[in-house]
Amino acid sequence: MKNVAILGASGYTGAELIRLLAGHPSIRIGALSANSKAGRPIEKVFPHLDHLDLPELVKIEEIDLSALDLVFCALPHRTSQSVIKDFPRDLKVVDLSADFRLRDPAEYERWYGTQHLAPEVQPEAVYGLTEVYRDEISKARLVAGTGCNAMCGLFVLRPLVAAGVADPDDLILDLKCGPTGAGRSATERLLYAELAEGASAYGYGGTHRHLGEFDQELSLAAGRDVRIRFTPHLVPMNRGILATAYVKGDAREVRNALEAAYEGERFVHVMPEGLPSTMSVRGSNLCKIGVAEDRVPGRALVVGALDNLAKGSSGQAIQNANLMLGLPEEAGLEVVPVFP
Amino acid sequence: MKNVAILGASGYTGAELIRLLAGHPSIRIGALSANSKAGRPIEKVFPHLDHLDLPELVKIEEIDLSALDLVFCALPHRTSQSVIKDFPRDLKVVDLSADFRLRDPAEYERWYGTQHLAPEVQPEAVYGLTEVYRDEISKARLVAGTGCNAMCGLFVLRPLVAAGVADPDDLILDLKCGPTGAGRSATERLLYAELAEGASAYGYGGTHRHLGEFDQELSLAAGRDVRIRFTPHLVPMNRGILATAYVKGDAREVRNALEAAYEGERFVHVMPEGLPSTMSVRGSNLCKIGVAEDRVPGRALVVGALDNLAKGSSGQAIQNANLMLGLPEEAGLEVVPVFP
Amino acid sequence: MKNVAILGASGYTGAELIRLLAGHPSIRIGALSANSKAGRPIEKVFPHLDHLDLPELVKIEEIDLSALDLVFCALPHRTSQSVIKDFPRDLKVVDLSADFRLRDPAEYERWYGTQHLAPEVQPEAVYGLTEVYRDEISKARLVAGTGCNAMCGLFVLRPLVAAGVADPDDLILDLKCGPTGAGRSATERLLYAELAEGASAYGYGGTHRHLGEFDQELSLAAGRDVRIRFTPHLVPMNRGILATAYVKGDAREVRNALEAAYEGERFVHVMPEGLPSTMSVRGSNLCKIGVAEDRVPGRALVVGALDNLAKGSSGQAIQNANLMLGLPEEAGLEVVPVFP
Amino acid sequence: MKNVAILGASGYTGAELIRLLAGHPSIRIGALSANSKAGRPIEKVFPHLDHLDLPELVKIEEIDLSALDLVFCALPHRTSQSVIKDFPRDLKVVDLSADFRLRDPAEYERWYGTQHLAPEVQPEAVYGLTEVYRDEISKARLVAGTGCNAMCGLFVLRPLVAAGVADPDDLILDLKCGPTGAGRSATERLLYAELAEGASAYGYGGTHRHLGEFDQELSLAAGRDVRIRFTPHLVPMNRGILATAYVKGDAREVRNALEAAYEGERFVHVMPEGLPSTMSVRGSNLCKIGVAEDRVPGRALVVGALDNLAKGSSGQAIQNANLMLGLPEEAGLEVVPVFP
Repeated sequence: MKNVAILGASGYTGAELIRLLAGHPSIRIGALSANSKAGRPIEKVFPHLDHLDLPELVKIEEIDLSALDLVFCALPHRTSQSVIKDFPRDLKVVDLSADFRLRDPAEYERWYGTQHLAPEVQPEAVYGLTEVYRDEISKARLVAGTGCNAMCGLFVLRPLVAAGVADPDDLILDLKCGPTGAGRSATERLLYAELAEGASAYGYGGTHRHLGEFDQELSLAAGRDVRIRFTPHLVPMNRGILATAYVKGDAREVRNALEAAYEGERFVHVMPEGLPSTMSVRGSNLCKIGVAEDRVPGRALVVGALDNLAKGSSGQAIQNANLMLGLPEEAGLEVVPVFP
Repeated sequence: MKNVAILGASGYTGAELIRLLAGHPSIRIGALSANSKAGRPIEKVFPHLDHLDLPELVKIEEIDLSALDLVFCALPHRTSQSVIKDFPRDLKVVDLSADFRLRDPAEYERWYGTQHLAPEVQPEAVYGLTEVYRDEISKARLVAGTGCNAMCGLFVLRPLVAAGVADPDDLILDLKCGPTGAGRSATERLLYAELAEGASAYGYGGTHRHLGEFDQELSLAAGRDVRIRFTPHLVPMNRGILATAYVKGDAREVRNALEAAYEGERFVHVMPEGLPSTMSVRGSNLCKIGVAEDRVPGRALVVGALDNLAKGSSGQAIQNANLMLGLPEEAGLEVVPVFP
Repeated sequence: MKNVAILGASGYTGAELIRLLAGHPSIRIGALSANSKAGRPIEKVFPHLDHLDLPELVKIEEIDLSALDLVFCALPHRTSQSVIKDFPRDLKVVDLSADFRLRDPAEYERWYGTQHLAPEVQPEAVYGLTEVYRDEISKARLVAGTGCNAMCGLFVLRPLVAAGVADPDDLILDLKCGPTGAGRSATERLLYAELAEGASAYGYGGTHRHLGEFDQELSLAAGRDVRIRFTPHLVPMNRGILATAYVKGDAREVRNALEAAYEGERFVHVMPEGLPSTMSVRGSNLCKIGVAEDRVPGRALVVGALDNLAKGSSGQAIQNANLMLGLPEEAGLEVVPVFP
Repeated sequence: MKNVAILGASGYTGAELIRLLAGHPSIRIGALSANSKAGRPIEKVFPHLDHLDLPELVKIEEIDLSALDLVFCALPHRTSQSVIKDFPRDLKVVDLSADFRLRDPAEYERWYGTQHLAPEVQPEAVYGLTEVYRDEISKARLVAGTGCNAMCGLFVLRPLVAAGVADPDDLILDLKCGPTGAGRSATERLLYAELAEGASAYGYGGTHRHLGEFDQELSLAAGRDVRIRFTPHLVPMNRGILATAYVKGDAREVRNALEAAYEGERFVHVMPEGLPSTMSVRGSNLCKIGVAEDRVPGRALVVGALDNLAKGSSGQAIQNANLMLGLPEEAGLEVVPVFP
């Protein structure tokens, strides 16, 4: 059994790590931290986990790092950098924050408006898009989990750009997501009353921070600069991202590129027909992708769906941890979607 | 007081007509029909209306048409044609179905897959986009209410095409709507369990019937053929359409065209900044439109929001009826959005 | 036209006051306060009100009280006492907080755990249960709006206790309500993610503060001490309280007592059959009550439904203000429920 | 590996059986039936299961019963009787319908208004309340799954009645549940638009069919007739039952009786403090129970929560099947609740 810690266990991605690891055959949770809630029993923080036999919540500094095989950092952005920077250099880490996603610290500063606190650690970080960087991740010490919106969008767009089957200057991504992507922070805009039964765009016009990831990864894949147009929308669903991409390219070629990219993949599926619903992936580590011809010749529609807390963050993190620890990649992750 | 009948009063648009007309200063509801539910008291059909003093539900043939100033037809598609065709030729009618929206009966057959049952009446019908066809509507005997999705999309796109500020060959409309647009039919896909907490595309790839209206109206406005790409998505909200349009055009010119088109309009507003939420219009006859520059130069984002049952159908119908009856256009329609 | 101010206009009850007053024929909003958001335009605080011609948000001290006919205080609990205490003694006030609901300041301290800051003003306050205290309210300077849960429960239980048709020692009230009753405060337990798709009890076992109101009003009605058992539950709906009462009494006598109590009332209706849904009252100033025999002889079930923001607070406040200002009691309040 | 069939695989309990069995170490799904949808691939019926390697949907008569170790019947009420009646008499069956829950066929006729079609099979049926009838179930050929509401209510009330710590003549059960308990039938009252954001009682006043089960089981436990008062309410949540019981009894004795009844149970937990939320059990096979003193001395509040599709039907069915097949009772059922 591998022994891991989850730092930041009082947030939604922390809870999702616990949920998925509870069914993992080869990983045990050795420590849980939650600085502001240290000392409280888990059932006060997450009543749905009260029946599990879990270590109590402590402060990070109380954890014996030497006993660990790997650490999951589900800490707030920026806190991750300052914590990971002081870790022993041989401690394996999967970070779920945005702190190490951008390879160039200058890009981090540009998108996050603050200086990178651990630029010396950044070169070690591998971008956690498992299906693309599987080999690097297997050998990595530090993996930077992707943004959940970025992951869904990249699953849909990256193979098209890499294969040259879609015009990289005409990529539009219209995304629908729920509030859990923003974490468990008590802010007015995330209140039930502000979200139930409504839909609205946010972070539009080139301002959403995940664009840093899109730019980085799509440009790398294309071998040239790629700048997508991206509009996320908040809709009333706790789990789920639906990414609708409008591309200039032949639908059949687009489908072929996607099928080639994900052939044999356990968690990313290209549907033989139809488009996916977020309900088809809820609670699971799956990403489902559908392709359709649009009515204008030479234009295609590609839609991806995943659960932002599972495949979009905590599931992805465990998948990467499995690779880093030499475990079967799918261990603990073969949970079936929950519907209804 | 003008005396009207509502045919098809047991559906959601019927109920919305009753709700709004209950506060109308110059229109009284003289008759209500609901063929399959004739004879039942309204509180069995719509408990929220049980405190109003309403006529009982009867069959259409029991209504004395000669006593009416105007009829609202909220009947199923196709039924409308067969009913309206037999009306006295001087009876004013606002039809909420799709039956008279397409000027060319051949287009009707193409999109609805069935022959037009009243082609001889079709030439009389005016397309009910009030803010565009106000004068014709004022003089019309028969007004064909627009599709709710089409209305929201046309409010956003039509002025751009008419003013030539957006490339008519590169118009994408990504729309989010709720299930009430599909009516009160007991079908599996509209069940609570099939929709709550999820998002999915439907009617994509050029198949949605409202494309007939888009093609017709945008081509007329442009003076040439226009074919938009349109993807509607179902999200869990009862009332509301959010239409996100991606256009090739300068954001400032786009804004100017929209502001010019809706200057002085009581119900269609261009926001000075920001983008609208469906929550800002719920329950009201308002359509709010926002414009933003996209990050790619020369591309703009335009978002429109309206309540599909109010401005999108029953509110629009009353607005048109007001014009046809010589009443103030805004009578009965100045209800404030309900939030939360 | 009467001129009023709304203090605390950035909360949900403040927004609901604005929504309802926008359609009021004889009241105009002369001033709006929102201390922490003073200086911000209303559309930044409530986008759904952006099309109304409203005064800008100011601090309370900037308002010229002498120009006002009445003030609505939608301030947080405790702030109300300190603000109202310094008002001119002839300024009419409808307070929506809990600050003046309990006639005995000792009871206030018991339930709210803090000293009453304006005990000298308390004797002036009339408890705002309009249908019961109509005459006193008409002559009052200060009316204390009821708790929304208390109002719904009292509408159901008070007539039974007053008429002696239910055993006052065996009253159970199981209540279902949504999160807007707790206001617009950014707290974790009110987040969308914490509430959507779930149900749970809160404030149970005699701890909910509205019990102070229940004890006071039911004991007064009975002429003896009455202590109900009360369990509120949080369910995912923004607007609505459903109060299910289990009483020992004959269903027919219970019905008679309710019908007698609310005969001729415009806003409180006893249904001839069936039980109400919150959907039948959403957005309106109505309370609907249904009665059913329970299967155990001599036991009845009484269910009341109202919209907590409308009849439960802001609608009630306007109804009381109408009485205090000599206006028709129903002015501005005849809005039809919004369904779906 | 044990080989099972699921009859009625196109309903929600069928899908839930598939979801849970997909992770079962010792049971494989050998056949799936769905008469009206026979021949359709599963992804047309349940897209969330499209990635599983499942047998195709066939008609019941196409299934080779001799190859099966056990059959799960998730068929509509009444169909179950006619199907099971013709099964070989040594075929093990877990029935999820109401058809064999009532030991006395006369009671079945009374509550379901129709004659029992297989009275000769009824004596074999064991009522599927696992934690109570574990031994009988282990030896049974036919187990009748409990009603989901009945199960939750019985978990809460049965130990109190059996231990004599609550007055059996004063039991009130106020229950909140979601629409999936009513199955996947396309009926108006289960539409999204009819349920979202609202709450209402149904099946009240002694009419709900699960009362047949309550009467039967509580009377057996008490050794005398027991008739509870029961009011179920529909609230907008797909998975979950919250059962609030009001009992006359000492809270400490009540707690003791519950703790004694469920000591060592893997799936039914008595919380040391607090009351449960449905969110704490969603997607899991858990039932959580909380106890609180009520404010009136000698009265207690007991609240139970479970997921109606999991522990309330399909999870329970698998738990019973495990017993019948000699497998570990918890096999395949240790899934952690999904939150948010």
